[in-house]
Amino acid sequence: MKRVSFDGMSCSIARSLETIGEWWTPLIVREVFYGRRRFDEIQGDLGISRNILTDRLTTLVDEGVLERRNIAQSGTRWEYHLTDKGRDLFPVLVALMQWGDRWAVGDKGPPVIIEHRACGHPADPVYVCSHCGEQLDDTSLRAHRGPAWADDPHHPLAPIEARRGGAPAS
Amino acid sequence: MKRVSFDGMSCSIARSLETIGEWWTPLIVREVFYGRRRFDEIQGDLGISRNILTDRLTTLVDEGVLERRNIAQSGTRWEYHLTDKGRDLFPVLVALMQWGDRWAVGDKGPPVIIEHRACGHPADPVYVCSHCGEQLDDTSLRAHRGPAWADDPHHPLAPIEARRGGAPAS
Repeated sequence: MKRVSFDGMSCSIARSLETIGEWWTPLIVREVFYGRRRFDEIQGDLGISRNILTDRLTTLVDEGVLERRNIAQSGTRWEYHLTDKGRDLFPVLVALMQWGDRWAVGDKGPPVIIEHRACGHPADPVYVCSHCGEQLDDTSLRAHRGPAWADDPHHPLAPIEARRGGAPAS
Repeated sequence: MKRVSFDGMSCSIARSLETIGEWWTPLIVREVFYGRRRFDEIQGDLGISRNILTDRLTTLVDEGVLERRNIAQSGTRWEYHLTDKGRDLFPVLVALMQWGDRWAVGDKGPPVIIEHRACGHPADPVYVCSHCGEQLDDTSLRAHRGPAWADDPHHPLAPIEARRGGAPAS
């Protein structure tokens, strides 16, 4: 089955999935966040086929999420490093990890604890408003049209805005 | 190609992807967060085939992310609602949206702005430590073994802990 591309949707969730929605990709990025930089290390941890890993790493380098560096004095010895774009995936991995900790692991509790280095306690990260610092949940936010709105008339926000009489983006 | 299951991995990121890693699933959950509750509404927004949408919705109901309610006075008229487990996916969608806003949209800017109702400003959510409230990034956290660690000897944390002389989980 040919995969549909989300590239025509302006939704930022869809666009993100265009790059990291491939089945193995978030786990490959997890590996690099944990300091695994070599093909064989990542392949060994994940038990992924070499073909699929080659394909996913190539995509991540092409998309600018990872950078491939030759660290050999002579010859070639490749390492994969996160770019700024890759490092910015940190909240996505945190969010996936937290949801899994709550809803997808067994009675034994989380397999990994992330601790805040500065205070020494489990971080259990929470989202706050960058303006006022108040903790956020799904009821505390309201979505409205941004500058790139017009690209995506089928976004679910469209009828909501229409009911509220929101001005369409030009 | 048969998809590999991540169910044998204890990593919470892998477990989360087991439920929501399917290509369309985060966008279907997005729809319900935006208040789209009916099959035809979601199908119309996403332009997804009816077969695939039926399959994904069934999985999400089976996994306890969505609840299917018959709202008809007589006969059947189904709506899909988020459960607590589904509502907890909110940070995952926020993280995907923010990353897309930064890295995957064009020059025109984000298609959707999320505003904090209480303060009236764009929320631009940031992760803070739940203990001390300090803002977090990938350099401010340290991962160590949690109670369910022993399930997953191939987790990339294993050799890091071994180098540090961390005690293996029993």
